[in-house]
Amino acid sequence: MPPTQYRTVHTVEVTEDRIGQTVTVAGWVQRRRDHGGIVFVDVRDATGIVQVVLDPTEIPEAHRLRMEFCVSITGEVRARPEGTVNPDLATGRVEIGATGLEVLSPADTLPFMIEDRVEVDERTRLEFRYLDLRRPSMAANVVARSRAIAAMRRVMDRLGFLEVETPTLIVSTPEGARDLLVPSRLRPGTFYALPQSPQLFKQLLMVAGVERYYQVAKCYRDEDFRADRQIEFSQLDLEGSFWGREEVLETLEEIVVEVVRELRGVELERPFLRLTWQEAMDRYGTDKPDTRFGMEIVDLSDVFAETEFRAFSATLDAGGVVRGFNAGGQETSRSRLDGLVERARELGAKGLVWMVVQPDATLRSPVAKFLSDDELAAVVERLDARPGDLLLVAADEWRTAASVLGQLRVELGRPAGHRELAPLFVIDFPTFEPTEDGGWAPSHHPFTAPVDVDQMASDPEHSISWAYDLVLNGAELGSGSVRIHDPEVQAKVFDVLGIEPEEAERRFGWFLRGLRYGTPPHAGFAIGIDRFVSILRDEPNIRQVIPFPKTQTGADPLTGAPSAVADTHLAELGIMLRPGLGADDR
Amino acid sequence: MPPTQYRTVHTVEVTEDRIGQTVTVAGWVQRRRDHGGIVFVDVRDATGIVQVVLDPTEIPEAHRLRMEFCVSITGEVRARPEGTVNPDLATGRVEIGATGLEVLSPADTLPFMIEDRVEVDERTRLEFRYLDLRRPSMAANVVARSRAIAAMRRVMDRLGFLEVETPTLIVSTPEGARDLLVPSRLRPGTFYALPQSPQLFKQLLMVAGVERYYQVAKCYRDEDFRADRQIEFSQLDLEGSFWGREEVLETLEEIVVEVVRELRGVELERPFLRLTWQEAMDRYGTDKPDTRFGMEIVDLSDVFAETEFRAFSATLDAGGVVRGFNAGGQETSRSRLDGLVERARELGAKGLVWMVVQPDATLRSPVAKFLSDDELAAVVERLDARPGDLLLVAADEWRTAASVLGQLRVELGRPAGHRELAPLFVIDFPTFEPTEDGGWAPSHHPFTAPVDVDQMASDPEHSISWAYDLVLNGAELGSGSVRIHDPEVQAKVFDVLGIEPEEAERRFGWFLRGLRYGTPPHAGFAIGIDRFVSILRDEPNIRQVIPFPKTQTGADPLTGAPSAVADTHLAELGIMLRPGLGADDR
Repeated sequence: MPPTQYRTVHTVEVTEDRIGQTVTVAGWVQRRRDHGGIVFVDVRDATGIVQVVLDPTEIPEAHRLRMEFCVSITGEVRARPEGTVNPDLATGRVEIGATGLEVLSPADTLPFMIEDRVEVDERTRLEFRYLDLRRPSMAANVVARSRAIAAMRRVMDRLGFLEVETPTLIVSTPEGARDLLVPSRLRPGTFYALPQSPQLFKQLLMVAGVERYYQVAKCYRDEDFRADRQIEFSQLDLEGSFWGREEVLETLEEIVVEVVRELRGVELERPFLRLTWQEAMDRYGTDKPDTRFGMEIVDLSDVFAETEFRAFSATLDAGGVVRGFNAGGQETSRSRLDGLVERARELGAKGLVWMVVQPDATLRSPVAKFLSDDELAAVVERLDARPGDLLLVAADEWRTAASVLGQLRVELGRPAGHRELAPLFVIDFPTFEPTEDGGWAPSHHPFTAPVDVDQMASDPEHSISWAYDLVLNGAELGSGSVRIHDPEVQAKVFDVLGIEPEEAERRFGWFLRGLRYGTPPHAGFAIGIDRFVSILRDEPNIRQVIPFPKTQTGADPLTGAPSAVADTHLAELGIMLRPGLGADDR
Repeated sequence: MPPTQYRTVHTVEVTEDRIGQTVTVAGWVQRRRDHGGIVFVDVRDATGIVQVVLDPTEIPEAHRLRMEFCVSITGEVRARPEGTVNPDLATGRVEIGATGLEVLSPADTLPFMIEDRVEVDERTRLEFRYLDLRRPSMAANVVARSRAIAAMRRVMDRLGFLEVETPTLIVSTPEGARDLLVPSRLRPGTFYALPQSPQLFKQLLMVAGVERYYQVAKCYRDEDFRADRQIEFSQLDLEGSFWGREEVLETLEEIVVEVVRELRGVELERPFLRLTWQEAMDRYGTDKPDTRFGMEIVDLSDVFAETEFRAFSATLDAGGVVRGFNAGGQETSRSRLDGLVERARELGAKGLVWMVVQPDATLRSPVAKFLSDDELAAVVERLDARPGDLLLVAADEWRTAASVLGQLRVELGRPAGHRELAPLFVIDFPTFEPTEDGGWAPSHHPFTAPVDVDQMASDPEHSISWAYDLVLNGAELGSGSVRIHDPEVQAKVFDVLGIEPEEAERRFGWFLRGLRYGTPPHAGFAIGIDRFVSILRDEPNIRQVIPFPKTQTGADPLTGAPSAVADTHLAELGIMLRPGLGADDR
């Protein structure tokens, strides 16, 4: 960055080799100390901090300086006196003896201190986000996000992807109840929708002959806000034609390796682990396994095939499973163990059996007396149990057993604060999920190609699709699939989903028409940028890596959005507020 | 790009050094000729075209091939027979003798041919945009836009800018009558607005200490559509703190040079021409001069200071001007000249005086008889007139004379179809423009810093601001300014604009508060990407370089947006259609 009228150097450049030189720095007053008539000021800019010494007899304005004043200061670089060197600072061996000071702008009293270790509620931080972003860790998050996206673009460029912008004012359909809407002024009474993803447009780009597409795309979802969701968010969206799954997974590995190298400076090993969805569910009880720790779930159904313990045998007779995992050394007070049983019930389990391995290798458990010695010995052996270990066993319908044990496994085992990274792919997802009314919903989305089209139609329950997820440390970074490129296959999938041809035409006709003009096989993916960066920055929530996020209710404490608007404005758009809407609702 | 299951090479790689090798290509059937039992097919992919020869006795499916079928073809690369070499094609010396053909997907009959020289109305092209984008010039536009944006990002990275995303669901204010609105479902009766630009957020990023910000930002404007506007568009948005005008203009030069190098392969000279707004208006009659040709406007007021020609003297007495330019050799039939006078009146002039220089250097003109010989001679001299030249003179209020002559100059002189590039900066814009009710409106926006704050307040008419435009070939590529960083100055500007403190607080309070915490001096710019790329691609309208544009009424013939949505959906958002809205309106 070249010098400007306000500075000749950045603070990071003020080092020993400039001793004797006159420099001008510009930035913010980070700290200010008045020492016997001499004023010490730490000046912070985007690159770092430098100490400045001002003599108020020469520069009377020095007394005026307060925290976060924006200043430009000129002076001579000199060595710090013996004993005042700060080895933690790049500029810690020098200081600037000020000869000139310009207050570029003063600062009101701050609502909170500009430092990391300050306790302040998130609402206040969001209201004064421009100050919150000055705090070192938040400033570093802004830089990290920018560098992560630059690294992604680097890979995309290198692999010959074109950046193509898809529209954000798109068509809404009567079925799109969760679309965010934008009323049209030129055609009052009609609406655009904001995209939930560029899915159909990127597929049409494949039809158009763009063989490699990418975009950092803004997407929108109007749903009840959960802990870690935003109404608008960004994803790295990509698609390749004449591609199958392997090309996508290889590309994803390149992206993840490059971003991790950029933000963490470590080199991930390739290829990444791959688990089928079935394996992931069986061993980890989730489709986003955290493999940074063991505690794998083990099937014990055969151990209890002949059991006399009614709770287990009834479950097995009904087609269920008995599964468990070894949680290792845990606190095993009665209240803790009761708490785990309670937690399992909350998660939907009928119950949870705990067993604590005693020093003599026998098992302490409320159900021990119902189990045979052989059964107990087999459990110890299967779960590789040692004295002091806590074993947790659930007997339930397969999916419930998997999800409850998977959740308990994460709650008991997930490492806090350590920096290991465990990326993996989950592949071979089921094509469909059962709906409550006995029908089928797409596991991924309705444009995902099934592996075996005939089986998909005849036996949807067991159909596997070409869908895949990228998982990092137990979080889903994104998902993708090989798409359907044959309109006949697309029609068969709609048929299983119970979407009549007329409905398909109404909702997707403009897209389906496009498939009829020589559509190449294609496949793609989307990576959620917020989640990816927050994991690499060890941030517990994604709002930490979004410059101007919304709260969980979609509000922006900084600007006051969303807000009431003038009725005349609404009238021009062909709409009005619903009369029943009380003042309280607004 | 590595080989996939559908291809081993791209068509561009099928050259003489592969003769004898077996390759697989994938792409679309560009042409197909049946010659005495042998089928010739040109296969097109993203990199080019290669000729394939199929023998239907070996590959019966070859007869099935039609235009734009998507295929994967395996065969041996061989030299083309003598006399059939195509020197215009990278792959023109070889062909592929097919041994295998897979039809990846067939194509219905096309609504238009996939070639550049096809006459088809724009609505049809937009409806089948995925086919339109297959045409060579459109495909090249998609590539060019991607490369232009990549070049911009390269410069931004090199100069240490961070890419920061600003929110797109922002606050609306009662005054923002042209905001596009998004009803909130979680707070029915309230609305977000889509941003007209990231202006206030990027200024707050400067407050936050992000010293270099950029973003390719989606912006929205809900206005009556003019020829070359889009309801959503992208701009390269940038801002720097501790910056003045020079840092911005230097950065812009780097960007323009890099993009032009990338798309045109030519090296622009730096520094770019700079014209003050006053110079631009005086010499070119516009704030976006096209300097690829001369025909500069010349002030003739002093020539006619003592004239007896009433039309001129009355204008001068009223404080107006007499100005003209030499349009050079033009067709000068009476009907053409009458047409020019008519056009000048359409543009708002009271009239237009034409003069044609005769072979004997005298002037043929309807007003010649009212002018003295000295006046006529002075006109000839000032306009450097030679026999055959057409001179156009207007007497009018300064601004009208400037704009009418400026418009005629462009209509008579703008070069068609040649590839010269003439970038320039217009600087020193007036701070304000007069409004119809006698007040003042900002020339740029209300956050632009005036050069002299005291003069701004006391003499707004003559106040100059730190605003600047980037102009290329007579089109405004973008504009920017040094911003106000002092809340007191901001208050004074609002005062001149007639914005009461209460109104300022209501509209911009959240932003103005941010200025009170040590705001650095800062400056920035936004470049419209559509216009920039369309000029470099010699495209007459920006829709040619937007992958999925809207029509001039904001409609999307591809998807049918905007469209009606379910009343139940609207009810959830706290809104309903205005009852007076007839079915015709929808």
